[in-house]
Amino acid sequence: MISIQSVIDDHQLLKEKSPLVHNITNYVVMNNTANALLAIGASPVMAHAVEEMADMVQIASALVLNIGTLSKSWIEGMLLAGKAASKKGIPIILDPVGAGATPFRTKTCHILIEECRPTIIRGNASEIMALVKSGATTKGVDSTETSKNALEAAKTLALETGTVVSISGKEDYITDGREVTVIKNHVPLMPRVTGLGCSASAITGAVAAINTNALEAAAHAMAIMAVAGEMANEKAQGPGSFQMYFLDALFNMKSGDIKKYLKL
Amino acid sequence: MISIQSVIDDHQLLKEKSPLVHNITNYVVMNNTANALLAIGASPVMAHAVEEMADMVQIASALVLNIGTLSKSWIEGMLLAGKAASKKGIPIILDPVGAGATPFRTKTCHILIEECRPTIIRGNASEIMALVKSGATTKGVDSTETSKNALEAAKTLALETGTVVSISGKEDYITDGREVTVIKNHVPLMPRVTGLGCSASAITGAVAAINTNALEAAAHAMAIMAVAGEMANEKAQGPGSFQMYFLDALFNMKSGDIKKYLKL
Amino acid sequence: MISIQSVIDDHQLLKEKSPLVHNITNYVVMNNTANALLAIGASPVMAHAVEEMADMVQIASALVLNIGTLSKSWIEGMLLAGKAASKKGIPIILDPVGAGATPFRTKTCHILIEECRPTIIRGNASEIMALVKSGATTKGVDSTETSKNALEAAKTLALETGTVVSISGKEDYITDGREVTVIKNHVPLMPRVTGLGCSASAITGAVAAINTNALEAAAHAMAIMAVAGEMANEKAQGPGSFQMYFLDALFNMKSGDIKKYLKL
Repeated sequence: MISIQSVIDDHQLLKEKSPLVHNITNYVVMNNTANALLAIGASPVMAHAVEEMADMVQIASALVLNIGTLSKSWIEGMLLAGKAASKKGIPIILDPVGAGATPFRTKTCHILIEECRPTIIRGNASEIMALVKSGATTKGVDSTETSKNALEAAKTLALETGTVVSISGKEDYITDGREVTVIKNHVPLMPRVTGLGCSASAITGAVAAINTNALEAAAHAMAIMAVAGEMANEKAQGPGSFQMYFLDALFNMKSGDIKKYLKL
Repeated sequence: MISIQSVIDDHQLLKEKSPLVHNITNYVVMNNTANALLAIGASPVMAHAVEEMADMVQIASALVLNIGTLSKSWIEGMLLAGKAASKKGIPIILDPVGAGATPFRTKTCHILIEECRPTIIRGNASEIMALVKSGATTKGVDSTETSKNALEAAKTLALETGTVVSISGKEDYITDGREVTVIKNHVPLMPRVTGLGCSASAITGAVAAINTNALEAAAHAMAIMAVAGEMANEKAQGPGSFQMYFLDALFNMKSGDIKKYLKL
Repeated sequence: MISIQSVIDDHQLLKEKSPLVHNITNYVVMNNTANALLAIGASPVMAHAVEEMADMVQIASALVLNIGTLSKSWIEGMLLAGKAASKKGIPIILDPVGAGATPFRTKTCHILIEECRPTIIRGNASEIMALVKSGATTKGVDSTETSKNALEAAKTLALETGTVVSISGKEDYITDGREVTVIKNHVPLMPRVTGLGCSASAITGAVAAINTNALEAAAHAMAIMAVAGEMANEKAQGPGSFQMYFLDALFNMKSGDIKKYLKL
């Protein structure tokens, strides 16, 4: 189980170890994702070419696969990187952006899960439900379901695939199919900024790089996101300024902020 | 004809309906475009793979084609999506970024217009002129002409192609070849921020999703852009802060702001 | 040798000439790069398709090749553009992002240097060292070496390739293998924001477009970056706000700011 103190410890360790996180992610969020990783003290690299997948994975401490703006050649890169990461034993985080919106996305997720055996799957409620129940749909990349409604699907998915599943939403649920951690912070502006879910996945990769307990790592990452969200929310005037203050908050976050804001 | 009140009505309806806008757009602006759509209450999705074009269009309420960082495989996706959108009867917005800068861009626009029959073409003066007169040139993606100079070309293009043409510039002109609407707001910082034209096209898609009168939709979208521009301009210290305040303004805009700032 | 006055002169000339800079760059930084170029008064275009490389180079005043998110088809575009630029005689800037992280990146840089004969190579310390000594490595895209340690490598690279080499870091070193210019400003937040190195390369392209002395152009560009960095640093609360203030600073920079902040 996670605690305020365990979040503080991993948050500190991140800055000390500065893990290199290899991202194969979507065009929309590459800039914020890289900035979010830099802000928490990690080192981001974005690379997708088949020619360098094995080499890049060799120097990375975690791999993040995000299917947000998928195309065929990128899937090839993802599979190569995923298999190399699996062989090397570094954590793999899958962000199933838009799963349920089109069969192409849902099917690609199933292939990536089957072939790469991700450590953690982090998505919104609709996406997680779509990976379990055929028929569940996603509005583009936005959820049409509450995270609470997706909890049973998350447990099923976790048990079926042997992964930890992390659902972001009004409440964040993180589960391995048995245990469930809940992060209760709720910042309504967050879904009005594109790519914060993708940042959550990338930060999950960074924490998983320094904590081999995937359930803890996934929960700590969502806790760090939640605290930064609360900090940004105190200053933001809208989604534009929220995005800026959010990066500042990730960078400036102190143990005291985690104690002050985190709601477990 | 549009009025302050018709802008207010569509602005309100946007928030209520939250249409899903499918964007096949350029790498430079994907992040701001998604954020601009979220800020006005719409739901953005960015997707370009041929494998999911038909499916994504099925759940979308508008399609935006933007040729900013064009390549061959993306044109394939655009054509598939455009034909599916045309068949489904949802509005298609074409943003001819850099038309006139290279024959590749101009020719691609002509193919997209021919094959997909866009509802609205939104570009800067040089781009619109390049689509009509061979010989007109564009400085990369920046206009070398005033919007006023492009008005006759816009009328011709509208009549020839059966579209509504929307030119952004010092003044915005929106025409179906017969009627002309003018938005007279002018915020000099706007062309110093990359991708605001692309945001205009995406918001045009969102408004066209909830208003079937294309002339009104195109004009209302430019009106919303103009009001957000004026609001951001009151606070901005330069193009960096302008971009942030612009998103905040899109999010916070009230009927009173439209009344206060819009110059028809 | 550069001086405060020579920086001021080129900074002014940039705004007057507003050169069109053609960028083939990575997905992560396209937006900031375009905004940085607009903010200093240049005109950016991002284009990579083989179909338009020759045409785009024809209207451009400088070409920037940045290998940040490399793939095979982009290399093809880079080679076409690079050869066309070389033939036309406009400056070519190479940013070897992540050279040393994978053989694919290092090798691609060597091919681009061989085939396109860049005017200026601008990178961080690890990248520059990796281009000279096989065995030097880069942590993804982040440097593991100080710029000072890379100076000898930079001189060797400059002499071997006939280019000017510009290393960003705690101190910036610009050399043609014989002369060395040092920019001594140091803003610790800058490496915590993704893509500022890429902005430096793009601005180097803009200055090289208006000053045919490559050593001066490269140094002036780093000087402008340094001054904007100091200006932004006075207001920033973290990397999020730094990024915003940095663009504002590029836009608002006056001769007086260059005099006040630049440390040669």
